[in-house]
Amino acid sequence: MSKDTTTTNLTAENPAGENTIIPKAVTFALAQSHFLVGDITANADKMRQLAIEARGQGADVIIFPELALLGYPPQDLLLRPSLSGRVKSALSALSDIEDIVMIVGYPHVDHHGTFNSAAILHNGHQKGFYHKQFLPNYGVFDERRYFDKGRNQVLFDYKGITIGLLICEDLWEKTPISDLKQQGADLIVCLNASPFETDKQDTRKAMLAKRSSEHKLPIVYVNAVGGQDDLVFDGGSMVTQADGTIAHEASRFLDQLMLTTLDVETLKFDSQAKAPLSLSRESEMYQALVVGLRDYVNHSGFTGVIIGLSGGIDSALTLCIAVDALGSDKVYAVMMPYEYTSKISLEDAQAQARRLNVSYTVCPIFDAVEGIRHTLAPLFNQSPADTTEENIQARARGVILMALSNKFGHLVLTTGNKSELAVGYSTLYGDMAGGFDVLKDVYKSQVYNLASYRNRLEDTPVIPERVITRPPSAELRPDQKDQDSLPDYEVLDGILSLYIDEDMGYQDIIDKGFDAAMVGKIIKMVDNSEYKRLQAPIGTKISHKAFGRERRYPLVNKWSVEG
Amino acid sequence: MSKDTTTTNLTAENPAGENTIIPKAVTFALAQSHFLVGDITANADKMRQLAIEARGQGADVIIFPELALLGYPPQDLLLRPSLSGRVKSALSALSDIEDIVMIVGYPHVDHHGTFNSAAILHNGHQKGFYHKQFLPNYGVFDERRYFDKGRNQVLFDYKGITIGLLICEDLWEKTPISDLKQQGADLIVCLNASPFETDKQDTRKAMLAKRSSEHKLPIVYVNAVGGQDDLVFDGGSMVTQADGTIAHEASRFLDQLMLTTLDVETLKFDSQAKAPLSLSRESEMYQALVVGLRDYVNHSGFTGVIIGLSGGIDSALTLCIAVDALGSDKVYAVMMPYEYTSKISLEDAQAQARRLNVSYTVCPIFDAVEGIRHTLAPLFNQSPADTTEENIQARARGVILMALSNKFGHLVLTTGNKSELAVGYSTLYGDMAGGFDVLKDVYKSQVYNLASYRNRLEDTPVIPERVITRPPSAELRPDQKDQDSLPDYEVLDGILSLYIDEDMGYQDIIDKGFDAAMVGKIIKMVDNSEYKRLQAPIGTKISHKAFGRERRYPLVNKWSVEG
Repeated sequence: MSKDTTTTNLTAENPAGENTIIPKAVTFALAQSHFLVGDITANADKMRQLAIEARGQGADVIIFPELALLGYPPQDLLLRPSLSGRVKSALSALSDIEDIVMIVGYPHVDHHGTFNSAAILHNGHQKGFYHKQFLPNYGVFDERRYFDKGRNQVLFDYKGITIGLLICEDLWEKTPISDLKQQGADLIVCLNASPFETDKQDTRKAMLAKRSSEHKLPIVYVNAVGGQDDLVFDGGSMVTQADGTIAHEASRFLDQLMLTTLDVETLKFDSQAKAPLSLSRESEMYQALVVGLRDYVNHSGFTGVIIGLSGGIDSALTLCIAVDALGSDKVYAVMMPYEYTSKISLEDAQAQARRLNVSYTVCPIFDAVEGIRHTLAPLFNQSPADTTEENIQARARGVILMALSNKFGHLVLTTGNKSELAVGYSTLYGDMAGGFDVLKDVYKSQVYNLASYRNRLEDTPVIPERVITRPPSAELRPDQKDQDSLPDYEVLDGILSLYIDEDMGYQDIIDKGFDAAMVGKIIKMVDNSEYKRLQAPIGTKISHKAFGRERRYPLVNKWSVEG
Repeated sequence: MSKDTTTTNLTAENPAGENTIIPKAVTFALAQSHFLVGDITANADKMRQLAIEARGQGADVIIFPELALLGYPPQDLLLRPSLSGRVKSALSALSDIEDIVMIVGYPHVDHHGTFNSAAILHNGHQKGFYHKQFLPNYGVFDERRYFDKGRNQVLFDYKGITIGLLICEDLWEKTPISDLKQQGADLIVCLNASPFETDKQDTRKAMLAKRSSEHKLPIVYVNAVGGQDDLVFDGGSMVTQADGTIAHEASRFLDQLMLTTLDVETLKFDSQAKAPLSLSRESEMYQALVVGLRDYVNHSGFTGVIIGLSGGIDSALTLCIAVDALGSDKVYAVMMPYEYTSKISLEDAQAQARRLNVSYTVCPIFDAVEGIRHTLAPLFNQSPADTTEENIQARARGVILMALSNKFGHLVLTTGNKSELAVGYSTLYGDMAGGFDVLKDVYKSQVYNLASYRNRLEDTPVIPERVITRPPSAELRPDQKDQDSLPDYEVLDGILSLYIDEDMGYQDIIDKGFDAAMVGKIIKMVDNSEYKRLQAPIGTKISHKAFGRERRYPLVNKWSVEG
């Protein structure tokens, strides 16, 4: 199908009507707010409240994030037959909001197809709609599974200025903004649902500066905020001047109704008195993990979470994040010692729980493990111990945690990190048993950085120093250390991040200075662990390539490592 | 981008060279064969062998399935940086095959993009390539994640006839074959990787008959065969005459090199003496389940499988399929009785194992369960028993099976059916613990049909009759029956298949005659069990909508049932 370059111009009437003097300014409200996936009625109610609030503060136009009416990403809810009816009802329920233009992200269904759209609502009328032209279908995105491509530019005149609409991916491409400029746009409004990745806000800023300055167009960029399954939308909505400088930036990770006023003659925005602090890399990662967990737990209706503390750094950091996300009173820690649990592990687990003021129980698993081993003894026929016996310990802990979860209704958090998950250094149904893996996308070396970061936030470190300094161990056999089976985490994470996050091949990784045999071994471990990851719980994506929907590998896979 | 309608005509030289008499016939070999995902070198070797074999039998042209060089679906292997180099090497390694035209499905990477392509190889030269125009991005397919759209028609002249190329989805659309007809095609060759669904072969036949007859074009349709993770390619390659009748049909589910000869003057194919038997619905479902399991186990390198037998029908049928897939000597059955296991369950489990001649062990789980309960007692503080205690039994069995798997290297098969998985009537890390769920896409009522089908295949039924007739029970508490918590399976499966397979909404299902409260309850159960399915093992897709990559729902999902 060829791209249709027809331009639709929509001219809204002057909302005041009686006033023929061209106004000097237009005030925009950026509704950076969390809209729940599927909850169309509640989302429309929220839009109504925000519109009334913004109007009260003097806003002329309020802009909601991409697809906010349905939430993002709705996945196969977009295929439900009642979608169109629900959306229409919700949009018409918004039609009694007067004296403010609402730009609403929603899924548009008509006889031409299903579109990822923005509706222009004004004084009870739907004044027009724009359909997203560029549909991302890579990484975590599957938009071509659901949506048809929009083929028209949409602009509307309002209070003397001409506003062009774009949605998310459109702005990352060159042509849509260029087309709008040619059609006479004075200003671009862009609706987004851009998920968090480390350093993503810097990338967005650079892109916005480039697009604004190359076309001499101010841009109003509204992002979604909040967690949805494995994704976190980090807000950070922005307004740029025509020269590419940032006039306003909203907070990261928080709901915010941000107002900004454009001088209609100069086409310049008023400038923010004080921009929000730029977040350090650790700070933004940590906040993403907190928000991802908080929203998953709260929106799934759990009253709390339960964590198996081992005395090690992964569960220590998971505990901190859980407490920061949910509060101490909703976090339950259980230490499940066995034969190989060291005294300092017991001490450190208790110390963490005490410092963070969470419920703490010690539940030794001797009886469970012995019962299982006794059951198996006739079948094992005195075969020598191997990793089977280690897995039994891990699985006994999994059974205990799940039983506590079933009995008391708390969600089990798992504590596996990305390095472990990558190479399969974990036990299915054991330490992998649980509903949410907080550190799923955090490499072990990043776990250390985040632990130190969290400790720096308070006068008394919440994670005992020796948890950070002692050599990591799964404590599943005497004197076990992670580095008995794995290279140093610096080397491991170096190879893993090139292979996974950068999608580099065997030879290219070796060319970066890593040992060939080690690279081959690690890649093979990653490829062979796909079956474990398939059954892993979800966890918040913070990297450029997270395990889960972003990285789709076959289980049966005969791709050779080398080459 | 607009669609380019340029037509590339490729004329192959007369392969004999010295012979200027126009030949009377062209023989095509349809290489319906299993090509392993990722194994480019081995796949090229297999192509070479098949080409030599076909040439020996007098074939002029050999056609391989869609993307056969890499296997289908390769998923994110298509993003590996070494893909292009590996494919080029493999194609050039095929260039010494002489005197037969090879039409090879492969991923084509060049500066225009990545394409799902067919190469025409002849006497050491790559004579041309066709890029698939229609890229499915629905259901199990994610082709737009990887591929760019082809925009050209490709035809080649060979021995006096003009052959037009298509790939899979192209043939389901109207325009590509119509374009080829206009460009002078005498015959269509279509490469496919069309996964099995119940009744799919009938749908393919109807489509082929329609396309052939409406354009008066014979079609050579080559399908892939074999299992790849959750998909089974069922073969059934076909050749149609210009009037739409089927001249040849290859076997379903089996590798086959099928030859067919076209009379160049009449453009008619010779006709098959005896077409393969049309398979009953149960027969094709059963074979799909056998092939899916067989190929997953063998290609994952497992030496055998282990199954927890309960005496119930799901594990009974799973055992049959495992034995038919792998042979009795590779199947290990374990009965794990507890307090609530009935005597007839023990008898029936043993009877099944004996009749199928598999290794059978009884492993009572009293010690394991008691050990776990003893460990939990101080934390449970005499709270009354609930489903927690039932889950502990299921998880004790999961731990035992996984320990046996770890110790002896066999893959644990789970036995959950689609009805259970849909409503969450199963225990995560309990009966859901394992690497492959044979009945994942089989509703309980279909389980009964398949059990009866399997019993009819032999004089002595392999599944004792009372396993089929007794009311199903998880036997996790005294006198428990599935129907204590669920409606009759006929009602349940009726609602489920409308909601899941047909994607119907609440009201439409009620309009089919089901009770409104029941429909609401079942839909809610399905929606609330998404978190369990996320961590479920894979299993063979046999329906029009299988759980897994074909049905992608958010975990946090506030979509209301009604409406």
